Amino acid sequence: MLENEVFSCFVFYSVLLVIKMYIIAIITGQVRLRKKAFANPEDAQRHGGVQYYREDPDVERCRRAHRNDMENIFPFLFLGAVYSLIGPSLAVARAHFLVFFLFRVLHTVAYLCVLRAPTRSLAYVVAQVPCVSMAMQVLVAVASYA
Amino acid sequence: MLENEVFSCFVFYSVLLVIKMYIIAIITGQVRLRKKAFANPEDAQRHGGVQYYREDPDVERCRRAHRNDMENIFPFLFLGAVYSLIGPSLAVARAHFLVFFLFRVLHTVAYLCVLRAPTRSLAYVVAQVPCVSMAMQVLVAVASYA
Amino acid sequence: MLENEVFSCFVFYSVLLVIKMYIIAIITGQVRLRKKAFANPEDAQRHGGVQYYREDPDVERCRRAHRNDMENIFPFLFLGAVYSLIGPSLAVARAHFLVFFLFRVLHTVAYLCVLRAPTRSLAYVVAQVPCVSMAMQVLVAVASYA
Repeated sequence: MLENEVFSCFVFYSVLLVIKMYIIAIITGQVRLRKKAFANPEDAQRHGGVQYYREDPDVERCRRAHRNDMENIFPFLFLGAVYSLIGPSLAVARAHFLVFFLFRVLHTVAYLCVLRAPTRSLAYVVAQVPCVSMAMQVLVAVASYA
Repeated sequence: MLENEVFSCFVFYSVLLVIKMYIIAIITGQVRLRKKAFANPEDAQRHGGVQYYREDPDVERCRRAHRNDMENIFPFLFLGAVYSLIGPSLAVARAHFLVFFLFRVLHTVAYLCVLRAPTRSLAYVVAQVPCVSMAMQVLVAVASYA
Repeated sequence: MLENEVFSCFVFYSVLLVIKMYIIAIITGQVRLRKKAFANPEDAQRHGGVQYYREDPDVERCRRAHRNDMENIFPFLFLGAVYSLIGPSLAVARAHFLVFFLFRVLHTVAYLCVLRAPTRSLAYVVAQVPCVSMAMQVLVAVASYA
């Protein structure tokens, strides 16, 4: 499958997005340590006392960014893979992947840096466009197998 | 892989389920706007004031439906794909995919329309049956590679 | 693809991890029933009254374990699959999969059994090592297609 250059292009941007999600997880942990706000009593105990078993708005913001990624990047990992199999042109396919990649990075930056609304929402909407496009093209390609 | 008609059948129902998840995200956004309950202060600011940075039970219901989909539909995207590779008959495989698809749609309807318990829980359980069946068949097929 | 023994080895551990996630979901449901703490008013109504529509720390712990699995095991299902396609040796690949599998199981046990910190965090970090290793190797393999 890696001889399919559309698939390889998809894999490249997908792995970068997975790494981006890993980075959000690391940032969340750093914010928990800095703000002393832990999700578990046993973690709080280790870092100064059970009073640090508490919520924090900055931690919750990181968690929302991470959850939004799960809601959107995980479906992309599936859609992009099957879309690669229906034989799109490399230029068109790369445009799909690149738009999704760039606007999901913008989404994360807008979330974590609290950019003015509606920057984050617009980034979400634009990133959905290639996903819906791929979903429709894949559906048409396999509709006869329903 | 799209010459494998079991895989194509799997892709068809999977893409429909991904679109179903996208629809929950859109509904969540609509409910946020209608109930004026935003997850971020910057969103609330844009829609009338920071007092609308608050939780709402209808929004939380949408988010639970979405999360439950992530917990169940994402594993299906993996299990269904590898199950397609172990050579099941098309009729049996389609039955697996169709049961999962129909009962996950019912699960979402039961969640968002607040159908009487235990409709939603039963839909969840029935949809798990083909998943567990696929998991077991795949495990048997690859057990020698452990 | 199942003639690729690295891929089959990956599938074996992946399916076990998906089953592990299903088990967390079952445990969550059992804890909800035992502690009488339901996420939906209609569920609470069915199990004794709307006063049981409430949060519970043991239920929340199960949900955090499940969410952490989604954040980490779902990316593995993608990374492991594409890593299998770049032709690693079976011994090295199996080591990657096995380390991830064992430390994610330890992560779940540490979470649900409240093992002393930092057991759970260490299990998370060790399980990330093969993931980052696979991500880097895959990126190098497909970088020319960016």
